[in-house]
Amino acid sequence: MSGDSQSFSVETSAPKQSHDITELVREVVRAAGKTSGLCHVMVLHSTAAIVVNETDDPSIGTDIQKALDRAVPDHAGWLHDRIDDNAHSHIKAAILGPSESLPVRDGDLVLGTWQRIILMEFDGPRSRRIHVQLLG
Amino acid sequence: MSGDSQSFSVETSAPKQSHDITELVREVVRAAGKTSGLCHVMVLHSTAAIVVNETDDPSIGTDIQKALDRAVPDHAGWLHDRIDDNAHSHIKAAILGPSESLPVRDGDLVLGTWQRIILMEFDGPRSRRIHVQLLG
Amino acid sequence: MSGDSQSFSVETSAPKQSHDITELVREVVRAAGKTSGLCHVMVLHSTAAIVVNETDDPSIGTDIQKALDRAVPDHAGWLHDRIDDNAHSHIKAAILGPSESLPVRDGDLVLGTWQRIILMEFDGPRSRRIHVQLLG
Repeated sequence: MSGDSQSFSVETSAPKQSHDITELVREVVRAAGKTSGLCHVMVLHSTAAIVVNETDDPSIGTDIQKALDRAVPDHAGWLHDRIDDNAHSHIKAAILGPSESLPVRDGDLVLGTWQRIILMEFDGPRSRRIHVQLLG
Repeated sequence: MSGDSQSFSVETSAPKQSHDITELVREVVRAAGKTSGLCHVMVLHSTAAIVVNETDDPSIGTDIQKALDRAVPDHAGWLHDRIDDNAHSHIKAAILGPSESLPVRDGDLVLGTWQRIILMEFDGPRSRRIHVQLLG
Repeated sequence: MSGDSQSFSVETSAPKQSHDITELVREVVRAAGKTSGLCHVMVLHSTAAIVVNETDDPSIGTDIQKALDRAVPDHAGWLHDRIDDNAHSHIKAAILGPSESLPVRDGDLVLGTWQRIILMEFDGPRSRRIHVQLLG
């Protein structure tokens, strides 16, 4: 079943960023030739997250980052900042989660009209490893 | 594998709402006759979410909505409000996520005593499309 | 497929706690002998959650709990507190979610270097039932 999983890297370019990875995931799904099943997308880091939302208006990604900054401000007395100065990014990653699962039908992802798969960077710029697992 | 996925619509009736969809999902699971596996439930929109929690006391759904309103107030300077006046609903949907996966055993969902599947509406009233994918 | 799912209990010891369950989940995966697929980990309660993040510095778990307390304070006028004095724990559980899915490859979990599976307790101390479902 080695053809059922694949990894790729995304280079982020700012400390906080929203990066649309839908087409990269879609390529993996199409290449695998799965007719039906599930596609699990996971970022293999604990200071980034995967979400599903709209990117047609890119300001939505900015709004999500701002809302998270408001709820989890940088350096607000977090204990982990004494060891590594990125506690806020761990907290946000834990709340949003490292993965999303998407249905696969007729060899392609099932997504609503305005749904896209987004890598949320909270501690960039970095190289982020994404693992795609297909089942079905 | 066409019998392994099914969609249905839920009509919400208020701007913000918590709607128990457990029995609708359970019907899909029972009709498919899957003995064991996983059931993936996804709302195909980016201003609504799926969560798992208690509905026996319906005020929990109200509390979840209130807590999200407190953390992500409507019209708090969000950029997307300039294009479409519903930025808060995108942010909440991104934080909660569009899907949940539930185990299937003996042809039925595995849920804790107080766990139910809930559609969270953040930009209603609308017709919301729910996709159920079964694996096993 | 009875060998593809297994449950275990974790006894938490404080009202709010972060408990690393990675090795308990890993034992289930190794015992099942699955070469490749997906591992779904779910806590069968609505006042606890599963997250994936770092535990090498245990203060990250404390920071996550503190950030959630800040966003969702105990007894901040929640309606469910009139029935059962734990509304904050339901809200946090709904936001973080009861489950995470992890890829399986070569008979073991696929996790990033700093990623661990964590049971988040919001209403302990309690005995928490964890269900692990394997697919592949």
